[in-house]
Amino acid sequence: MSIRYLTAKLAQQIDEELMNTAGAFSIDQLMELAGLACAQTVATIYEKERYPRVLVCCGPGNQGGDGLVAARHLGMFGYKPTIWMPKPGSKDIYKRLHTQCVNMRIPTLPASDSDHNLAENTLSTALAASDVVLDAIFGFSFKPPVRAPFGAALPLIARAGLPIVSVDIPSGWDVERGDDVAPDAGGLGLGVPVLLYPDVLVSLTAPKEGVRKFAGRHFLGGRFVPKPLEEKYELNLPPYPGFAQIVELPQQDGGSSQKL
Amino acid sequence: MSIRYLTAKLAQQIDEELMNTAGAFSIDQLMELAGLACAQTVATIYEKERYPRVLVCCGPGNQGGDGLVAARHLGMFGYKPTIWMPKPGSKDIYKRLHTQCVNMRIPTLPASDSDHNLAENTLSTALAASDVVLDAIFGFSFKPPVRAPFGAALPLIARAGLPIVSVDIPSGWDVERGDDVAPDAGGLGLGVPVLLYPDVLVSLTAPKEGVRKFAGRHFLGGRFVPKPLEEKYELNLPPYPGFAQIVELPQQDGGSSQKL
Repeated sequence: MSIRYLTAKLAQQIDEELMNTAGAFSIDQLMELAGLACAQTVATIYEKERYPRVLVCCGPGNQGGDGLVAARHLGMFGYKPTIWMPKPGSKDIYKRLHTQCVNMRIPTLPASDSDHNLAENTLSTALAASDVVLDAIFGFSFKPPVRAPFGAALPLIARAGLPIVSVDIPSGWDVERGDDVAPDAGGLGLGVPVLLYPDVLVSLTAPKEGVRKFAGRHFLGGRFVPKPLEEKYELNLPPYPGFAQIVELPQQDGGSSQKL
Repeated sequence: MSIRYLTAKLAQQIDEELMNTAGAFSIDQLMELAGLACAQTVATIYEKERYPRVLVCCGPGNQGGDGLVAARHLGMFGYKPTIWMPKPGSKDIYKRLHTQCVNMRIPTLPASDSDHNLAENTLSTALAASDVVLDAIFGFSFKPPVRAPFGAALPLIARAGLPIVSVDIPSGWDVERGDDVAPDAGGLGLGVPVLLYPDVLVSLTAPKEGVRKFAGRHFLGGRFVPKPLEEKYELNLPPYPGFAQIVELPQQDGGSSQKL
């Protein structure tokens, strides 16, 4: 039995069940373990001696929270993370997670919603001073088009040529159709889709339909799915080794993970 | 600079700072990482093929919560944990953490405050069917004497002859004076102190004064102390390896960790 790839709807449903009856987890717990898995994936592939400076790019939703947790753990591991979070989530948990990073002296780039140039210049400067990008911008609840300021940011990140580790779904990709998105999906009139092509992917709970053909190194994290829930949805998760919080999935042949 | 051993008062103070200004952590986050560290310590020493049945003994305070988190992770790792929690904590978080274990089909022993014989018989039966004990009964806020039903339970656990992994402070020990407690500290008139002598200890955040002379294998967990907080209290924590959540401390010579 091979692992199940989730539709956006099913991913949402399982997420809700984890926090309701089937799991009873708090979002603090789930984000802590998810973010830890993201940080451990970065640390597995990009050793801190060669890749100390991690630019953690956080979106406005739950995935941004995973990114903030990952930034904190990366700091604990001895990396030098920097946070780019141009649209902070409004929920209390984002504020707390961000405060935890501030308390650890992890810097956050200045951001301005109303001034794209500032955001772009700041981001470009930060990319030039980074060794690897953790893409925690859009997750399984992303729906196109890519909105400001991310529409302008994704091409900057893509063109920087840094190694990218994406969480759950590479930013810009459709959660179910992957990188098969219309050229104008970003609504920027650029003639090309606004997509990131990561080197490494970390899927949380279970992989999503859109990454079936992802050909880079692919890890699974979020070792918190109770067996009854896994069985109910026939997730067929692979066994995690020992007490690890991440497991690498077999690599795909071919696929669509060429760089732009 | 060697690691700092904490008084009960200082441990309490640091715990509060972690959740207030210096950390801004929620108790859900801290317990998740602490419990994960406890489970990983058990799994490091007692492999699941030989020691699958872990009796997780939970006290009524925060350490009981760490135990519940550890039980859940041990279940995820493929162990067969059983929970003994005769006095469940009243806070909402214990109920949620326990529900998470129930949702994973982890059994909890029946318990009765008013019937010590029942508790004893149940516990004795469970000990006979276990391979290792995780002692999450009393933590750094423990003050003697040992109260019912734990006064009767500790000798049962000690006499069972199973390997014991204790969290933070072996149950019955004084947080600062260790196993140097009066023979009647348990208030049972047994003529001997009611103490557990664990094979393995996992200290959370930083070790406590009372375990200075502990001579078994000693791990540190709780990799969440921000550097500024560590520096403020001159904790001199050892470096954790890679992205591990636990680190083994050097073994002491001699000490007081003989078995009863």
